[in-house]
Amino acid sequence: MRINYDTLYKVMKERLVKYGANEDIACACARNLADTSLCGVYSHGLNRFTRIISMIKKGYIKPNERPECVSSLGALEVWDGKLGMGNTNAAFCMDRAVKLAKENGIGCAALRNTNHWMRGGAFGVQAAGAGCAAICWTTGMPNMPVWGGKKPCIGNNPLIFCIPYGDSYVMFDGAMAQFSYGSLESARLAGEKLPVAGGYDERGRLTDDPGIIAKTWRPLPIGFWKGSGLSILMDMIASVLSGGKPVYEIGRQGNTPEDEYGLNQVFIAIDVRARTTETAETIGAIIADIKAAPFAEGFSEIRYPSEREKRLIEENKKLGIPVNEGIWNAVNAL
Amino acid sequence: MRINYDTLYKVMKERLVKYGANEDIACACARNLADTSLCGVYSHGLNRFTRIISMIKKGYIKPNERPECVSSLGALEVWDGKLGMGNTNAAFCMDRAVKLAKENGIGCAALRNTNHWMRGGAFGVQAAGAGCAAICWTTGMPNMPVWGGKKPCIGNNPLIFCIPYGDSYVMFDGAMAQFSYGSLESARLAGEKLPVAGGYDERGRLTDDPGIIAKTWRPLPIGFWKGSGLSILMDMIASVLSGGKPVYEIGRQGNTPEDEYGLNQVFIAIDVRARTTETAETIGAIIADIKAAPFAEGFSEIRYPSEREKRLIEENKKLGIPVNEGIWNAVNAL
Repeated sequence: MRINYDTLYKVMKERLVKYGANEDIACACARNLADTSLCGVYSHGLNRFTRIISMIKKGYIKPNERPECVSSLGALEVWDGKLGMGNTNAAFCMDRAVKLAKENGIGCAALRNTNHWMRGGAFGVQAAGAGCAAICWTTGMPNMPVWGGKKPCIGNNPLIFCIPYGDSYVMFDGAMAQFSYGSLESARLAGEKLPVAGGYDERGRLTDDPGIIAKTWRPLPIGFWKGSGLSILMDMIASVLSGGKPVYEIGRQGNTPEDEYGLNQVFIAIDVRARTTETAETIGAIIADIKAAPFAEGFSEIRYPSEREKRLIEENKKLGIPVNEGIWNAVNAL
Repeated sequence: MRINYDTLYKVMKERLVKYGANEDIACACARNLADTSLCGVYSHGLNRFTRIISMIKKGYIKPNERPECVSSLGALEVWDGKLGMGNTNAAFCMDRAVKLAKENGIGCAALRNTNHWMRGGAFGVQAAGAGCAAICWTTGMPNMPVWGGKKPCIGNNPLIFCIPYGDSYVMFDGAMAQFSYGSLESARLAGEKLPVAGGYDERGRLTDDPGIIAKTWRPLPIGFWKGSGLSILMDMIASVLSGGKPVYEIGRQGNTPEDEYGLNQVFIAIDVRARTTETAETIGAIIADIKAAPFAEGFSEIRYPSEREKRLIEENKKLGIPVNEGIWNAVNAL
């Protein structure tokens, strides 16, 4: 079934208020979640909503806490998220990074003790809308093995690189695992194999079976040892800058998805407003060049990063947002 | 055969002076190249030297040009590398980023019209030595297909994340291709297969044969579509910030390795000096945690990112730096 954006937004906003969120936070949080479903990142929009409410009930998310400035040094600020709502805390800190960038050319806000930011790309798009290129990333719970190990002890730590493109943007938004647990679950439910090997089975052999990987908790890092190494550095830099808990400490809170709280994030914005025209020309030319490449075997199109989500946004605006009926009913029953 | 560091340095320095480099630039360039070989990145140290001299002769590298400031906005500066020596230009710009970070918390120098920086990790280590975390990357010639295409039209664009760790550092330094052309060549010469699939054969099938991949110019991006997407964003952000030529324009200069000149680079430094003790504790604890993970099948050790290069440095300091006799003779004959 499909539900229109406004209905999705309204239902989530009302439930957030019902469970104690102030009006402004409920609006901003529900807006972010509805946008996330609109973009096609269903796993981190409506589908994540019951978990958010459950985490509010447990006190892991304190919806009315707001970030507090811990330190400020010119273009670099450190904020304590006080376990507030993850997506609104993150939007607040990207806004700080953008403001610092407008004053200093580049700005950085490091955020600790926060919650899951849902779709990381939202904050890249936010920066682009304000005329800034953005680099940001988050830590998470240990959900991927380090290279050479078989216990999940590092995070899949999504990384975002985004740049304004006219009134729009071009963005890379990707986790350090080849497939997120959300996409493993979608493939498993659809009875599909993964397009490429996505992790290891019990005996340490690569497999394209999403159900097996979800059971072993051994998703494959992108680039094998490379994604593992980059994930570790993202954890180190985020933990050091923010002063928050590293990934392994998040793991000690428990091993259910709801035990993932108290995360660290880094938001960097770089001001490119002064070069809007050249930027659009440069980016347009790069896109034209890659689209002109001869197709690899089995391909009939080359897409630039984030092109697919922009198409999904248009489609979902027109047709409504696809929702799972069981999930939709569960959210309405909250 | 092995050659000691001082000899390696001295021979390269003298040749650089012979081919027209000023004393200070020759010293800094040769130091960087000798350090690069010392770290075990042989492909970008001594082994790259004859190409550097050839590019000087062709005028693609102008060894005595120094970066010129194009614009300055608080903590963000843009520099024109004027086709100077790649590794000394890059060191200059990381130094600028560090100085800006010390004044502003975070600093960024974007560099255009420069040359190959050799080992990108050198600039991460440089920032760490000055008490800064670093993020930096470079563009290059088109040497990897975009996802869905079969012509090399994007760069493998190495990305560096580095953080100080006591008197040392921890670093991710990796290209967006699963294997660099340097490591493909090493494996091919040694008659070895790659440890995992590293690219495509003529018919578009994944292969672990390094010789075939070097011929098709179809190395595999890390994470398939993910490494392709991140490479494109790195090109876009570097080109927009620096105002220099995107990767596709580098490709129009020719398709031999020596036609790779006029590149763009981004250097970001973040000041963490004030937190030296906590930083070392946090990083030490993260390392201890990953090293305690149970080994995956076939592994007997878990290394943190950059641990291997630190061991190679110690080994090569003690035993001398392994050099290919033919290459060593060719450099001496210059």
